[in-house]
Amino acid sequence: MIYLDNCATTEVDIDVADSAYKMMTECYGNASSPYGFGRDALHKITEARYQVAQVIAAPTERVFFTSGGTEANNLAIQGSLGTFAAKGKIITTSIEHASVLDACKYMGLQGYEVVFVSPRNGKIEAKDIIDQVDKDTRLVSVMAVNNETGEILPVKEISYGVKKKNPKVYFHCDCIQAYGKLSVSLNDIPADFITMSAHKIHGPKGCGAIYIRNQIPFKPLCYGGKQESMIRPGTENAAGIVAFGKAANNALKDMNKNWSYVHKLNQYLRDELHKVNDAVINSPENALPYVLNVSLPRLTTEEWLHVFRMNNICISGSSACGRGEKSRVIREMGITGRRADSVLRIGLSKKNTKEELDILMKIIKNVY
Amino acid sequence: MIYLDNCATTEVDIDVADSAYKMMTECYGNASSPYGFGRDALHKITEARYQVAQVIAAPTERVFFTSGGTEANNLAIQGSLGTFAAKGKIITTSIEHASVLDACKYMGLQGYEVVFVSPRNGKIEAKDIIDQVDKDTRLVSVMAVNNETGEILPVKEISYGVKKKNPKVYFHCDCIQAYGKLSVSLNDIPADFITMSAHKIHGPKGCGAIYIRNQIPFKPLCYGGKQESMIRPGTENAAGIVAFGKAANNALKDMNKNWSYVHKLNQYLRDELHKVNDAVINSPENALPYVLNVSLPRLTTEEWLHVFRMNNICISGSSACGRGEKSRVIREMGITGRRADSVLRIGLSKKNTKEELDILMKIIKNVY
Repeated sequence: MIYLDNCATTEVDIDVADSAYKMMTECYGNASSPYGFGRDALHKITEARYQVAQVIAAPTERVFFTSGGTEANNLAIQGSLGTFAAKGKIITTSIEHASVLDACKYMGLQGYEVVFVSPRNGKIEAKDIIDQVDKDTRLVSVMAVNNETGEILPVKEISYGVKKKNPKVYFHCDCIQAYGKLSVSLNDIPADFITMSAHKIHGPKGCGAIYIRNQIPFKPLCYGGKQESMIRPGTENAAGIVAFGKAANNALKDMNKNWSYVHKLNQYLRDELHKVNDAVINSPENALPYVLNVSLPRLTTEEWLHVFRMNNICISGSSACGRGEKSRVIREMGITGRRADSVLRIGLSKKNTKEELDILMKIIKNVY
Repeated sequence: MIYLDNCATTEVDIDVADSAYKMMTECYGNASSPYGFGRDALHKITEARYQVAQVIAAPTERVFFTSGGTEANNLAIQGSLGTFAAKGKIITTSIEHASVLDACKYMGLQGYEVVFVSPRNGKIEAKDIIDQVDKDTRLVSVMAVNNETGEILPVKEISYGVKKKNPKVYFHCDCIQAYGKLSVSLNDIPADFITMSAHKIHGPKGCGAIYIRNQIPFKPLCYGGKQESMIRPGTENAAGIVAFGKAANNALKDMNKNWSYVHKLNQYLRDELHKVNDAVINSPENALPYVLNVSLPRLTTEEWLHVFRMNNICISGSSACGRGEKSRVIREMGITGRRADSVLRIGLSKKNTKEELDILMKIIKNVY
């Protein structure tokens, strides 16, 4: 099997899975319990919190664990806006992940005005977002990297521009695809909320995190125990959290090495695809190298996926959360017709090899 | 170390931890992905859903996975009430878990009338709850087993009585402490919502589930992907879910065997405690044998916990989610003074032995 869908999810690193296993079988105490065995679990969770926070240069105590990226994005949007008495405006882009788009639409039903800024010439322009900011704007939510094309969005320019125009506006950066791959941190952007996920960086599914700037009034989604400062109550997923910490630490340690390696793979794939008759690469030139979005008009996406399935290659056409629906991101980029109907998303990781890409290219060339 | 806090959390069974490990390292595909490797994960999740549903005799497709019991309880309460245009009455007990109490209080802030029925002579009486039901009642939420005393609440009598008086009222049964230990199922109670958790039955933390009766309008807490029928979107915690399935299956298979074994341990402990001068057992005679709540007035709870810590014994005074706060359940039972200040909650499991209880009793007797 060749796994080339690393934007959907990634293989869990062995040392990461080992750390989860150890928590389950050896350090299974409840982190809220009043004895050493519970404290052991609490210490491991605190260490993981530090490891996860380090990647974005956040204060450890302002990072809160969630059940994943979707919950983290919903917390950022619903949680920050839930405390305002007077509704206002939310600005986001039309190419966000479903968990941001749908949480914003839900706030729209609650009385907020929601503006979805679309790409211009295939890319999100900082100016288009900043121009929308007014005195009633409450929140701007923009992803650092798009999950289908790898487009790196100008979140630094956007966040500074937004804060300059109206310092009261909250800025949320969905870093789920960028986290641990591209350096995005509080040193670079004045974010109020940053959301992250473990399973995109060789950690387990079911664990994410949210950074919340100090002193922001916040409305949780759930009520109950005192865990995670009551921002996110419930017995901590200790195994998942510790594994997330390990995965974050691995990613931070090897960020440059992995980037160079995957960048070479990406460049090789681009070069090979350029040799294919009518292939069009949809990812920008300077996209995150971990994603390559390409249209191969000889077959439709569905037909390609069938070919790849037959050859035991895992590739998708769009976001896994969309479950095979046509890509909204591609449509928003202004890509239409046969090119839109033949889109493939190739997700690379540190675990892929040039040999795997050669097999992929051989299959593509065979079809052509 | 002697672990006697099995109501807070339990040791993960080795075969359960193994199943989680295998999902992380071998079956790491995204269950929403359009190829066999993703489908493999989906099949494993579906199998786990069946295993979890079996324990409560629920239709597989009406069980939805959550990040734990707290989220499941919040979903049952916030999710079911979130669809009503006109507010109404919620009836619950004053001895519920914090996640039920606080979710109900939150709905109270949204305009609902919330009635907390207290125990009478130390126990919740079905009549006291049924009497409260009126035409404006929307939801009755009652736990099957109390998490601090093991009291088995008359949920069958309550649920039938409630439905008889007003068939439109939803009935939520928090089965988190009962699940997999005591048989509570849709064969016995006409529940609309049943909530469960993995980590109380030797599964991992970070995974729970909710049964939702068919055709109930439901408002999710989060928005995004299409996972879990959009009741609970986000990439599935596949490792946790599969491990939960395994733990549920183990629990169902050995329910009677474990009950008999733990019942003997509990009886032995009761007999030994009766020999202690001023010990008072707070758990009812016919409580779930997995919990024994006792007052030992010679020392305060805090002092006892110190003694146990010194002897590497894990015991708590109340719910872990309360983080060492004085027990609300004990107070609600009408227990006061020194008896209330010297409460211990001993949580038993299939993994405990008579020898462990002998060591515990030796320490207690030494103090006396």
